[in-house]
Amino acid sequence: MKLNKIKATLMALMMLIIPLELQSKEHPKLILTKAGVETIRKSLGQVPLFDASVASTKQQVDIEIALGIDTPIPTDYSGGYTHERHKKNFVIAQKAGALYQILDDDKYAEYVRDMLFQYEAMYKDLPVHPKPRSYARGKLFWQCLNDSNWLLYMAQAYDSIYTFLSEEERQRLNQNLFRPFADFISIENPQFYNRIHNHSTWGNAAVGMIGLVMDDQELIDRALYGIEDDGLEVGLKDDDGGFIKVEGQKTGFLANLENPFSPDGYYTEGPYYQRYAMYPFLIFALAMDNVKPELKVFQHKDGVLLKAVNALLNLSDAEGNFFPLNDAQKGMSYFSASLVTAVDIAYHYGDQNPQLLSVAEKQGQVLLDQSGLSVAVALRDGKTQPFVKQSINLSDGAEGDEGGVAVLRYGVEDLAVVFKYAAQGLSHGHYDKLSFSLYDRGDEVIQDYGLVRFVNIGQKGGGNYLKENQSWAKQTIAHNSLTQDQTSHFKGKYEIGSQHHSELHFFDDSRADVQVVSAREANAYPGTEMHRTMAIIKPENFATPLVLDIMKVTSEAKHQYDLPFYFMGQVLQTNFDYEIPSSLAPLGDSDGYQHLYLEGKGKPSSDSTQFNWLVEGKFYTLTSATNVTDELLFARVGAQDPEFNLRRDAALIFRRKDVGDSLFVSVIEPHGRYSPVSELSVNPKSNMAALKVAFDTEAYTAVVIETLDNKSSLFIVANRDPATSAKHHLKIGGKHYSWLGPYHLEVIK
Amino acid sequence: MKLNKIKATLMALMMLIIPLELQSKEHPKLILTKAGVETIRKSLGQVPLFDASVASTKQQVDIEIALGIDTPIPTDYSGGYTHERHKKNFVIAQKAGALYQILDDDKYAEYVRDMLFQYEAMYKDLPVHPKPRSYARGKLFWQCLNDSNWLLYMAQAYDSIYTFLSEEERQRLNQNLFRPFADFISIENPQFYNRIHNHSTWGNAAVGMIGLVMDDQELIDRALYGIEDDGLEVGLKDDDGGFIKVEGQKTGFLANLENPFSPDGYYTEGPYYQRYAMYPFLIFALAMDNVKPELKVFQHKDGVLLKAVNALLNLSDAEGNFFPLNDAQKGMSYFSASLVTAVDIAYHYGDQNPQLLSVAEKQGQVLLDQSGLSVAVALRDGKTQPFVKQSINLSDGAEGDEGGVAVLRYGVEDLAVVFKYAAQGLSHGHYDKLSFSLYDRGDEVIQDYGLVRFVNIGQKGGGNYLKENQSWAKQTIAHNSLTQDQTSHFKGKYEIGSQHHSELHFFDDSRADVQVVSAREANAYPGTEMHRTMAIIKPENFATPLVLDIMKVTSEAKHQYDLPFYFMGQVLQTNFDYEIPSSLAPLGDSDGYQHLYLEGKGKPSSDSTQFNWLVEGKFYTLTSATNVTDELLFARVGAQDPEFNLRRDAALIFRRKDVGDSLFVSVIEPHGRYSPVSELSVNPKSNMAALKVAFDTEAYTAVVIETLDNKSSLFIVANRDPATSAKHHLKIGGKHYSWLGPYHLEVIK
Repeated sequence: MKLNKIKATLMALMMLIIPLELQSKEHPKLILTKAGVETIRKSLGQVPLFDASVASTKQQVDIEIALGIDTPIPTDYSGGYTHERHKKNFVIAQKAGALYQILDDDKYAEYVRDMLFQYEAMYKDLPVHPKPRSYARGKLFWQCLNDSNWLLYMAQAYDSIYTFLSEEERQRLNQNLFRPFADFISIENPQFYNRIHNHSTWGNAAVGMIGLVMDDQELIDRALYGIEDDGLEVGLKDDDGGFIKVEGQKTGFLANLENPFSPDGYYTEGPYYQRYAMYPFLIFALAMDNVKPELKVFQHKDGVLLKAVNALLNLSDAEGNFFPLNDAQKGMSYFSASLVTAVDIAYHYGDQNPQLLSVAEKQGQVLLDQSGLSVAVALRDGKTQPFVKQSINLSDGAEGDEGGVAVLRYGVEDLAVVFKYAAQGLSHGHYDKLSFSLYDRGDEVIQDYGLVRFVNIGQKGGGNYLKENQSWAKQTIAHNSLTQDQTSHFKGKYEIGSQHHSELHFFDDSRADVQVVSAREANAYPGTEMHRTMAIIKPENFATPLVLDIMKVTSEAKHQYDLPFYFMGQVLQTNFDYEIPSSLAPLGDSDGYQHLYLEGKGKPSSDSTQFNWLVEGKFYTLTSATNVTDELLFARVGAQDPEFNLRRDAALIFRRKDVGDSLFVSVIEPHGRYSPVSELSVNPKSNMAALKVAFDTEAYTAVVIETLDNKSSLFIVANRDPATSAKHHLKIGGKHYSWLGPYHLEVIK
Repeated sequence: MKLNKIKATLMALMMLIIPLELQSKEHPKLILTKAGVETIRKSLGQVPLFDASVASTKQQVDIEIALGIDTPIPTDYSGGYTHERHKKNFVIAQKAGALYQILDDDKYAEYVRDMLFQYEAMYKDLPVHPKPRSYARGKLFWQCLNDSNWLLYMAQAYDSIYTFLSEEERQRLNQNLFRPFADFISIENPQFYNRIHNHSTWGNAAVGMIGLVMDDQELIDRALYGIEDDGLEVGLKDDDGGFIKVEGQKTGFLANLENPFSPDGYYTEGPYYQRYAMYPFLIFALAMDNVKPELKVFQHKDGVLLKAVNALLNLSDAEGNFFPLNDAQKGMSYFSASLVTAVDIAYHYGDQNPQLLSVAEKQGQVLLDQSGLSVAVALRDGKTQPFVKQSINLSDGAEGDEGGVAVLRYGVEDLAVVFKYAAQGLSHGHYDKLSFSLYDRGDEVIQDYGLVRFVNIGQKGGGNYLKENQSWAKQTIAHNSLTQDQTSHFKGKYEIGSQHHSELHFFDDSRADVQVVSAREANAYPGTEMHRTMAIIKPENFATPLVLDIMKVTSEAKHQYDLPFYFMGQVLQTNFDYEIPSSLAPLGDSDGYQHLYLEGKGKPSSDSTQFNWLVEGKFYTLTSATNVTDELLFARVGAQDPEFNLRRDAALIFRRKDVGDSLFVSVIEPHGRYSPVSELSVNPKSNMAALKVAFDTEAYTAVVIETLDNKSSLFIVANRDPATSAKHHLKIGGKHYSWLGPYHLEVIK
């Protein structure tokens, strides 16, 4: 049904695309347009941020022109000289092309022309790149992915100087460089080009862009619809373990646009890869919009590309860093160049949302095109408004029915709970159903580990994924989620994981003092259902909001359950005793446990186990309802890590053995501040006396939060019927409670 | 000789002090003066930073007034409510007093009056504080030190509202509160009051301040000259292990001013405690200056107090954080309130150094007195200049002849090497002769661990020193210094360590491209001499400056030497192989080794051992000349740490066994940058091919730095004669070298 829908969409689009040969013969036409350039030239000197962006780009390009062009014979992985040089070449060429148009100075066109002819001279005899690691080796780079980056940028550079070149020069470039280049990354590497994956998006867009410049209909079709007969075997996988060929799957740019984005604009691999993938999506969509505006690519799938920019910005912390869901390198943020592109394009070609201007202002630069000018003009004219991030629920899956990701926020990003109940996330997905992380004003409090890779740092495995990414980062125990019997979700198998997703129970952000998300996972461990409800609540009798975590596990068989909290910062105090071992040994021998040292082991000394710690000058306490037989484990990442690829981060793990049904309930309470300058502690200790499970059945779970000044709040979640209109009645300890909707919060004492 | 000199100085001062009874009867007179208040009132509304400081202080005080006064019965250690409340009381009272003077609004005087009478009502029956940990328990606080803080601030508050009170009210306060309070912290606690220690400085200044307000000559004398017959036993020690009573030692404020400061203004305990001690020194000196300007306290010992402000500011990194020499909590910086005091007073009562204004500007606040007004006016009038920190050598010891601390800097604080060859540093000293730390634009690259304490965080041992401060932080192996036979310098014994200091060989910052410090230590290990030369050099053929470290050890007996580098950040690559253990065990059982896990063990695979790592987006390589028999140990802090009091930080330790004389030579090379936003690596790898010892005798040590592009630089240090006028001739490998002065740097290929 889904495939039929896509097919229909594609057919409809094809009807529109047919008269492509009628497209504009003008250049530039892809990103910059002739009319746009005229407007830009007239605005020079009058739009501060645009002028500043021109000036800094000019400075950067002028230095490169002075240094001279180098197109070395490719030898290195990322991080090595030849890799970084070729990468810099295409980035600078694209900028030089834009400067040629804006400043009308031939030296920029000559620089691009000379560089292109150096490539033209070397490309025809260039063998496949000597480094063997990729499933799809490029020529200039070790993987076709980077060759595609090159072509996507160079197509823009070429477009900018197209009219500066003679017809003979253009023919030489087309025949010796661009067409063979496009063929190499597509028909010669269908395993790279012809799939649903961010790699293919780059390949498709690159082929399409150069097709548009060259006016080569075959390439444009190949970009939009993929290769019909790619000769690939169904079930083939790449070196990350992702599927290359899936039965009946359409390919090409439009299929890639259809598939990984949910209707809400969430990209199934997560924000780190979304940031990377946005660039080819937006750039080719924009080129199509400029050359064929009637195709309305930006409006495709109900405007999904522009929605995706909004989703991406919302998946960042208070400082603009993307939440590291799935494989993600921490520190990537909306300051990335691809987000400058995304924000400027979303502003100009979207609905001129003034909140985007405040992000652009922080970025401090704009694109050297019409969209960048438009943003800079609006900023100059004082139209900016703060970008306000609130709680958001983003569906996953092409149809929006494969789980999702929710972010609960409180205040001006004082607290943000990132809750993942999504699909597998393709080959970059982690086995972490119902996992969460917690941020406080941009600081990680309970962290998601992210990936194990040092992107473009050659000393670390050529800058590529390291083996601990598989053995540690993807495993369930590396996440703030539940591991059963020391085995990862779906046994850590992609074939199984990619068939399933969690299910939303409800998301409710209707009340300022209560933000809730609740979801179930029934497939990670056959026979076991996990149901996690997370909430930020601010009971009237509390000075600060609390994060409530209810993990309800149902299983007929008995198991061991491990629920970790990867806290950042400094242990201060516990209300339980624990022993530390005289030497540190790993917690297990597989599924990530081999990378965890046991640093301490204890047992609860009360029904409410408390753990107090300090992160970046802020105090927190975790209070958990525990049983006397629970084990409390302090663990440290870093065992069996012969190359020091892992950070020595800590976790507190709640372990419960030999149980079937079980309920884990915790509250994370931010309650104070510390300054190393004033050396003043404000509210360093918890205000909670106890956390109790007041009621727990298949239908309802109720917990009571008791404070030190003897007040109590009750939170009830309806486990079965989440309808906002549903009326509930429940008797707990002799008292009747009635409420409407999926949850109830009440101060009871 | 030294004591005689001090005695003579004191006698001379006493002559001047005699006519104290003639002092001003006006109030306020301590910090604010009647004339000063008039100027301030006239300036209101015209000096932005002063007005802002008044406004923010007013806001803070008004909130407290609205909340009401609370003077609880003392029960807690620091971090606990009663401690923090009483602390806040004296801080707010001092501010309220200043506001009363500036704004002429009785509500502030009434607030201070009411608070003082609440204290007056409770103090007479108040027993000694119930918490037993201190060698000198206070009444309001667990230690007399905090009671002294209270009195020093309250004296100012009292002075501000003195004329607002009736004579009867003043008598009541004097008799029931202030005089008994002053007696309690002095004659009832001579072990606290009558020594050379920052504790006593607070005590002396507090007693002196209240004496000045009360016009009580006995208290003033007691403040200046201590208690003549204190009845204390010689050799008595406090709970930190510091000496309380030293034979023949003078006491009181003037002796405390004489002794811990070197003529350069370095405070022997280090900058963290200097910052703390500066406040009573400056405040009481200023009060004396206002009441008895003819005493010229600020000019005492050649202006040492104002020099001390300059020394302190220079002992901070690029972001203003103090270098954590000896016991020091990281994060303390010139943003501390006591540095606002120091900077404002140093500007106003010193020579109006316009560079101080840029620090004041960063602090964003000024004192509510004449000095704060003066700074704010100068800032308003655009007189500010950048505070430029360059290489500096600060002597230690009252006479400046007990070693010192040098900071080598390159560029605008691009690099800073902090080199310690000082005296013991009283009871807060660490056993780390010739240790160093390295900073790069404010980031720690090679760290000094600092203290083990969470100041004012009650959950951690009442906020006091933790036992790991002694067992780990003070030990030699916790520092970037040499440990012999797994035993700390001076066997970790204060009695021995406090008799010795290292000796400067030379300090030379005469050349922009070479900054050198060289010092010897002959007493840490009897029979062994350590001679360390550290330099920042920028050979012509290098793009970046290098940090050169030459540790020359001489011993007739054979020993094991351990030389650690406590690197921050992420291990990237080594050029040697190492094994990681399957479980982690401690490296030893005493002298700090019991807190280090062995994480990896290897041997050099070449004469130049290389270790490449990443800190805060910057790449570094350590290249060391090594022998095949050396052991290379990766260590991690955190063993035998049952309360999680230690950070899990890392070190690379060079171990050499069974040798007498030995030479350790290393180069730390900052060579590149990485951004997680652009994901671009710039120069991630070392440019060095080798580091070789070309020559090594008692007289000279010469090393050759070879680059990958086959160039070489030679650095020679004269181990015997450091005179700048000395001519040296040396033949190395058939080539003659001649030069003038203690070192020679030459590009030889």
